[in-house]
Amino acid sequence: MPIADPKADPTATLLISCPDQRGLVAKIASFIYSNGGNIIHADQHTDRLANLFLTRIEWQIEGFNLPRELIAPAFSAIAQPLQAQWRLRFSDDIPRIAVWVSRQDHCLFDLIWRQRAGEFAGEIPLIVSNHADLGAIANQFGIDYHHIPITADTKLEQEAKQLEILQHYKIDLVVLAKYMQVLSGGFVAQFPQVINIHHSFLPAFAGANPYQRAYERGVKIIGATAHYVTQDLDEGPIIEQDVVRVSHRDQVADLIRKGKDLERVVLARAVRLHLQNRVLVYGNRTVVFA
Amino acid sequence: MPIADPKADPTATLLISCPDQRGLVAKIASFIYSNGGNIIHADQHTDRLANLFLTRIEWQIEGFNLPRELIAPAFSAIAQPLQAQWRLRFSDDIPRIAVWVSRQDHCLFDLIWRQRAGEFAGEIPLIVSNHADLGAIANQFGIDYHHIPITADTKLEQEAKQLEILQHYKIDLVVLAKYMQVLSGGFVAQFPQVINIHHSFLPAFAGANPYQRAYERGVKIIGATAHYVTQDLDEGPIIEQDVVRVSHRDQVADLIRKGKDLERVVLARAVRLHLQNRVLVYGNRTVVFA
Amino acid sequence: MPIADPKADPTATLLISCPDQRGLVAKIASFIYSNGGNIIHADQHTDRLANLFLTRIEWQIEGFNLPRELIAPAFSAIAQPLQAQWRLRFSDDIPRIAVWVSRQDHCLFDLIWRQRAGEFAGEIPLIVSNHADLGAIANQFGIDYHHIPITADTKLEQEAKQLEILQHYKIDLVVLAKYMQVLSGGFVAQFPQVINIHHSFLPAFAGANPYQRAYERGVKIIGATAHYVTQDLDEGPIIEQDVVRVSHRDQVADLIRKGKDLERVVLARAVRLHLQNRVLVYGNRTVVFA
Amino acid sequence: MPIADPKADPTATLLISCPDQRGLVAKIASFIYSNGGNIIHADQHTDRLANLFLTRIEWQIEGFNLPRELIAPAFSAIAQPLQAQWRLRFSDDIPRIAVWVSRQDHCLFDLIWRQRAGEFAGEIPLIVSNHADLGAIANQFGIDYHHIPITADTKLEQEAKQLEILQHYKIDLVVLAKYMQVLSGGFVAQFPQVINIHHSFLPAFAGANPYQRAYERGVKIIGATAHYVTQDLDEGPIIEQDVVRVSHRDQVADLIRKGKDLERVVLARAVRLHLQNRVLVYGNRTVVFA
Repeated sequence: MPIADPKADPTATLLISCPDQRGLVAKIASFIYSNGGNIIHADQHTDRLANLFLTRIEWQIEGFNLPRELIAPAFSAIAQPLQAQWRLRFSDDIPRIAVWVSRQDHCLFDLIWRQRAGEFAGEIPLIVSNHADLGAIANQFGIDYHHIPITADTKLEQEAKQLEILQHYKIDLVVLAKYMQVLSGGFVAQFPQVINIHHSFLPAFAGANPYQRAYERGVKIIGATAHYVTQDLDEGPIIEQDVVRVSHRDQVADLIRKGKDLERVVLARAVRLHLQNRVLVYGNRTVVFA
Repeated sequence: MPIADPKADPTATLLISCPDQRGLVAKIASFIYSNGGNIIHADQHTDRLANLFLTRIEWQIEGFNLPRELIAPAFSAIAQPLQAQWRLRFSDDIPRIAVWVSRQDHCLFDLIWRQRAGEFAGEIPLIVSNHADLGAIANQFGIDYHHIPITADTKLEQEAKQLEILQHYKIDLVVLAKYMQVLSGGFVAQFPQVINIHHSFLPAFAGANPYQRAYERGVKIIGATAHYVTQDLDEGPIIEQDVVRVSHRDQVADLIRKGKDLERVVLARAVRLHLQNRVLVYGNRTVVFA
Repeated sequence: MPIADPKADPTATLLISCPDQRGLVAKIASFIYSNGGNIIHADQHTDRLANLFLTRIEWQIEGFNLPRELIAPAFSAIAQPLQAQWRLRFSDDIPRIAVWVSRQDHCLFDLIWRQRAGEFAGEIPLIVSNHADLGAIANQFGIDYHHIPITADTKLEQEAKQLEILQHYKIDLVVLAKYMQVLSGGFVAQFPQVINIHHSFLPAFAGANPYQRAYERGVKIIGATAHYVTQDLDEGPIIEQDVVRVSHRDQVADLIRKGKDLERVVLARAVRLHLQNRVLVYGNRTVVFA
Repeated sequence: MPIADPKADPTATLLISCPDQRGLVAKIASFIYSNGGNIIHADQHTDRLANLFLTRIEWQIEGFNLPRELIAPAFSAIAQPLQAQWRLRFSDDIPRIAVWVSRQDHCLFDLIWRQRAGEFAGEIPLIVSNHADLGAIANQFGIDYHHIPITADTKLEQEAKQLEILQHYKIDLVVLAKYMQVLSGGFVAQFPQVINIHHSFLPAFAGANPYQRAYERGVKIIGATAHYVTQDLDEGPIIEQDVVRVSHRDQVADLIRKGKDLERVVLARAVRLHLQNRVLVYGNRTVVFA
């Protein structure tokens, strides 16, 4: 799954879920083929408990007979009788990402480095923080930095300001890269495309201070979890997790240090999968077409 | 990928590879749909370097309008113009497995246990060994045991005997479960469905005594590799690999002990993937549709 | 850490914990050296938060000038002023293990196989179960099998019977190898040497049905945990954990199957570490001198 | 193993190897105790094949009765009759590191970030490269950058220049952070403290283009290896290794991308272990007292 130049050979991707029935693969593949499309990725999954068919299909736009702006309406005619939910993305529509941080810089640095190295196709025009500390890094990389302090009293009005800024910057995705504030339900309802990194192997140690609690429990492995943010804290659909072994020699400070390496990698993988339209959410679960 | 009772709700599976071109997914899916089939798994991969399209497609036989014996001829008509190589399997055709061993019993025990526990759909009517040691285990589980000693001088004639036994028992798959003899090229040419477990992370330490050599090299991780057997020793297509961490405290005996746990799991996974027709070999590589 | 023949070259092992102070390593090492002992393993850990010194020291009995029965009293004179808690074991005192099961056989089979293969030094004279199902396996390997059914009403009286049997068989260690009953606090108080395998990555999914709940939560990794049993269910000191990756394709039955491989390995590692006197418990934590 | 402020509570560390004999732990521990030292870490290993005793011992300087400059001579008197090889380090002697790079920046960025974050106690006053490309990064972080191009013809004279620069900057450790040139035997003889990151799971794919060759071999796992540099290319003592799973979907570019995450972490761990004097080399092996 390398990123070729997404502008050079653009593709269209459909993520579709609908009640299972016969002929779905044939119908969807025929729609693309009959319009001259060359499928370069197709994967499906059937959740038999939910009786749900879920698929990702990607094809080259070059040679496709339907003009871009007609693909959605044309597919809509197929999707409606299937009661399908779907999303269409073009690989050369480059998403705009806001990275939100507090005081820790490791995930921020990592995301910026990966974006510059071409590991994922997205722009980072904006950093938001409830602290001033990391402004220098934003400056160093020429990214706008908005310092929006939050207190219990000011949370709602400051969230209004945050939403305004997201709109102003035309942000498609918010990445909470160790942003140590909980988003209100109202915020998430208005801006649902938010990925968070939680520094534990959820559902173990949901909530605050997971490393301290992992130490106290004496676990032999710690983890990190990237998930979509929902109104229920730390309960959103999990995109990616990973773990690392620890021992009695590791103090809380060691867990934090080891955890940072996990957080960086797990968050980056989740953001990349999301940007490649490989993550399909249904219920509180994800299908990751990796 | 649980095994429901393979007899209760049988499926057909096609593994197909052919030169890449437009419309392949549509053509294959339409073949199944137009005959009333319900696809329960479809996955594809395109090797762009080799310009090869590779796919696995599985559908329920119940409700499929073509009688079993006509599926292959009917699909052949589609496959030929595509220059496709393909294989058709029915989940209620239970493959017959011969497990080959020398003196070590851990993989043998493990395969028998998994087979009895229903972890894979296959019968084990036959154990072949170049030693007599494990005959008691075969006896304990009511499996036929053929002791066929091999020396440099007798190898070819004994292989003839082995081939005869395989034929007699109608064996579909040979699993080398720590069989410490090299099969001749002639044998492999006549019976190509052979899976081997190699006790190293190939291509590291190909050949003999991998644990000893891993110890001497001072590696911090050891591995095991399950692969199809080809005429080139330890060079066949890799199906599955896994690793475990070791330290300076581990002597060769510890590497062997830790390695046994790897060997059991890696071999079992490979056998299961093979029996579920999830492994497609092309060139010296595998696509594992897991 | 290979097992040489524990009878051939026996060793003594001390596990010691005491308030930290200067000179502990020197004092303990000198005790052994001055009596002519050859130390073959020494490791220490200091928990600075608890201000506790914890160590494991193992030496060859051959050439040690103190007769066995005088080692404990002699070391006691050193330990008392240090306020040390300690345990002395001889490698040729082979512990007697009771394996407790319900209906699942994978851990039982695995422990028996490892014991026969010499992976750990312990005898298994007894299997206890609340079901009759696995009696045939016990029979097959010549191990006594006691079927002691448990209901809510009979639990306490049946536990009395269990304790009696443990005493009768002179059992040193109980291994709960998928024994699906909770031990009462009273039982644990009377027989505290119990290792359990829990089929989740504790503290995630403590309690019942962890695989079902892992599936529902949509985690991308599952785990298993071996721990000492305490009066608080699933809260005892963790000895060992391991994990395996899962995906959306894995149904609950797949999690169970993959989990079985984890359970076998994690439980076996924990039992081996315990039998080698490598696990030192303090508070609700373990130091594993591996 | 957290880094407390190494200046605030300095420690001394001895790494010792010598022929095995009775009383070694006692002698060494007594040396420290009798001088009033408080041991905070002691670990030992005996290589029975080589009949070698290897140990790491660390104690607080505060309260130690011997002045620093007398510790080495005093210990020498103990070490000589034991035929011991040993190394003494003080935690507040901060080593000076030169990072060598070619064109890839991921390991360089990572090391700089970790050094600034306090993950290891070392200074990075110097970056050396055979290319000019990464000068801007050096500049950004205020580190001197020496561009020393290498051709087959100029190698020896340029290495002389490199050695001169290392001396000028009083460098203790060279870290090859994706420096794509082979050091000559002569260089290594004169400056032996060099750690390299190799982008494969050595000894698999030693030499050039490991990702390409891993792709061609169809492995299911790739790795990275940090090792000390010796005169034999890719044959030096291994400090640390790690791996990541890959699949048929991963093209060479994906292996490179996934490999970068491994390289960063594996190299950083090795550098940290080295700087904490936790790595003892003997023969072509390491003992890592982690």
